[in-house]
Amino acid sequence: MTLKVGSRGTLPPFIVMEVMMAAAEREAQEKAVYHLEVGQPSTSAPAGVIARAHQALQEDKLGYTVSPGIPELREAISAHYAHFYNLDIPMDRIFATTGSTGAFILGFLAAFDPGDRVALASPGYPCYRHILKALGLVPVEIETGPEHRFQPTPELIDEARAGGDIAGLIVASPSNPAGTMLDETKMRRLVDYCDAEGIRLISDEIYHGLEYDFKSATAASLSESAIVVNSFSKYFCMTGWRLGWMIVPPDLQRAVECLAQNLFISPPTLSQIAATAAFDCHDELRSNVKRYRENRALLLDELPKAGFTNIAPSDGAFYLYADISDMTNDSREFCARILAETGTAATPGLDFDSARGHRTMRFSFAGSTEECAAAAEALKAWRV
Amino acid sequence: MTLKVGSRGTLPPFIVMEVMMAAAEREAQEKAVYHLEVGQPSTSAPAGVIARAHQALQEDKLGYTVSPGIPELREAISAHYAHFYNLDIPMDRIFATTGSTGAFILGFLAAFDPGDRVALASPGYPCYRHILKALGLVPVEIETGPEHRFQPTPELIDEARAGGDIAGLIVASPSNPAGTMLDETKMRRLVDYCDAEGIRLISDEIYHGLEYDFKSATAASLSESAIVVNSFSKYFCMTGWRLGWMIVPPDLQRAVECLAQNLFISPPTLSQIAATAAFDCHDELRSNVKRYRENRALLLDELPKAGFTNIAPSDGAFYLYADISDMTNDSREFCARILAETGTAATPGLDFDSARGHRTMRFSFAGSTEECAAAAEALKAWRV
Repeated sequence: MTLKVGSRGTLPPFIVMEVMMAAAEREAQEKAVYHLEVGQPSTSAPAGVIARAHQALQEDKLGYTVSPGIPELREAISAHYAHFYNLDIPMDRIFATTGSTGAFILGFLAAFDPGDRVALASPGYPCYRHILKALGLVPVEIETGPEHRFQPTPELIDEARAGGDIAGLIVASPSNPAGTMLDETKMRRLVDYCDAEGIRLISDEIYHGLEYDFKSATAASLSESAIVVNSFSKYFCMTGWRLGWMIVPPDLQRAVECLAQNLFISPPTLSQIAATAAFDCHDELRSNVKRYRENRALLLDELPKAGFTNIAPSDGAFYLYADISDMTNDSREFCARILAETGTAATPGLDFDSARGHRTMRFSFAGSTEECAAAAEALKAWRV
Repeated sequence: MTLKVGSRGTLPPFIVMEVMMAAAEREAQEKAVYHLEVGQPSTSAPAGVIARAHQALQEDKLGYTVSPGIPELREAISAHYAHFYNLDIPMDRIFATTGSTGAFILGFLAAFDPGDRVALASPGYPCYRHILKALGLVPVEIETGPEHRFQPTPELIDEARAGGDIAGLIVASPSNPAGTMLDETKMRRLVDYCDAEGIRLISDEIYHGLEYDFKSATAASLSESAIVVNSFSKYFCMTGWRLGWMIVPPDLQRAVECLAQNLFISPPTLSQIAATAAFDCHDELRSNVKRYRENRALLLDELPKAGFTNIAPSDGAFYLYADISDMTNDSREFCARILAETGTAATPGLDFDSARGHRTMRFSFAGSTEECAAAAEALKAWRV
């Protein structure tokens, strides 16, 4: 008898995966590839983290930990909020998670019921939509553009509420793919609006620390009701270690703890122990940010010369989001073509904005400055 | 305005956590505790795995991997099926996952729709029920006893279907908490029944390799339609590394891959690389199994002298499940009392069987033989 297949697995794939596969094929033919498609640091975890991991491999049995994470790590994260934001977040509100995706799963399940509508900006990180759908929630996309610096506003959310109640709002500052940020005034407006209207705010702060003009504002400083998500993946360069954290509102703590026990047991133990050393590695980490800053300046200078004149006003992260509607109406084909003809791998906007992304693309500058410079030269030569 | 809290976070906590906290308090007072409550090996990952992890920390950037896991690991798992079961499982059906819980989340979402009923044995591992509920599925508990060796049968499932269609069946052999196993004939009966009736079988094989009388049968040898879940946590002693795997039926492969990309990105990279060495460590791992075998024999000999005369016929895993209805009607209080009075920490049956677990308890023999012997002596002295 034929077995049923669930409907929740029919998610669109990441289109960036196609780009990565085509790039790998090109490299197999020994042709140059400039990797401006990848959303992760090109450097490994800082030396202090690696050293701590070696030590733990020798000294620790690496069994399960308590579900919210080892106290040493939660204390270190709490101290990070004191140093970085001048903010007192008690350790019992801090949960270590299996990457930021683990935090989203726990936060969404704890805060919402099946059928609840959750608003989020488009363009945006595709996993938000896909995790919401997999968990029976309804993503409500708010179209944003350069005029909103690609961030939601109370007015845009009001418009979205015409279509039905909104139970939650996801914001990401710095944004992926646009790199734009909410300053403290704008973040406060959103937080106050959500608190007043009974909307649960989920603030994705995974790119905090990667900012070039002004400092990121954390929702944790403005409301106890917001779910704040962060990670060791970006600023701390620990993607494959699968370790994130969340600051949990008091009314959701018990639920998040029970869910974490059952859905994850505990985050990877070696990653937890090693990450306690990450907060002593700011010198090395700041030198990475310095490199990103140089890469960003280089690309903002050079890409317009290659015809990419319409780039979002990026403040942070390691992304530039370009409107390419004067060059193509098919970003997927366009990205395949510039990979084939210049060796530059970049991501079609469709991953981030299914409605308008056929006229946009994303460049990542997380790699080396040499790689960014070589890509810029190749693109300029191609344009000529 | 008060914010809503989702209903899916209201899961019962693990009662074993209470035992662990009470045990920790007792240890803080420098009183002896014999840990027969913990469901994880007392030994660390084998030396070859540790060595491979040290090497990877030096040589690899430890970025994200492809979602199904690195090819070297999937090949090594495929080779394991050839060696251990004489079975050819192509690499593209094997997905590395973030622990076995990651595999359950992906498998349940891929195979079922909200509201679907999924049958499973009671007593059983509590996370099955809780993950099912968190994902909008309906666990249908099948009461099993020593007369069924605590395993479901087609006849018991037929009875459960009187209450409504069953979309899936979870089996665990060896079982947690009972340690009982399905031999190949019984496994085949269940597999054939499920295939004939359009019921998706999920076979939890996480305790394979820990068997004392006969070899575990894998559902993978009997049907391509079964979802087979396994892990590096138990036989391979890698609990905190959070690495499992699943064998995915061809009709669910695309769904599992899309879900994994979005919900987990990839399993921990260092764990994946290190685990490729696990299959060369059978000598060390078999010496652990030899210790479990000795612990099991010791407890099966000694516990009856302490009054635990009604123990399930355990074939594998590292658990003994005792019916204690002749001693108490309140397993929670009873376990608290034997911890306080003998130092023996063990788990009340309520975690595994909410209906009947107030008259049962579970002993784990994953620790050292000395610890098991000391616990047995203390329990015998207490009984006298």
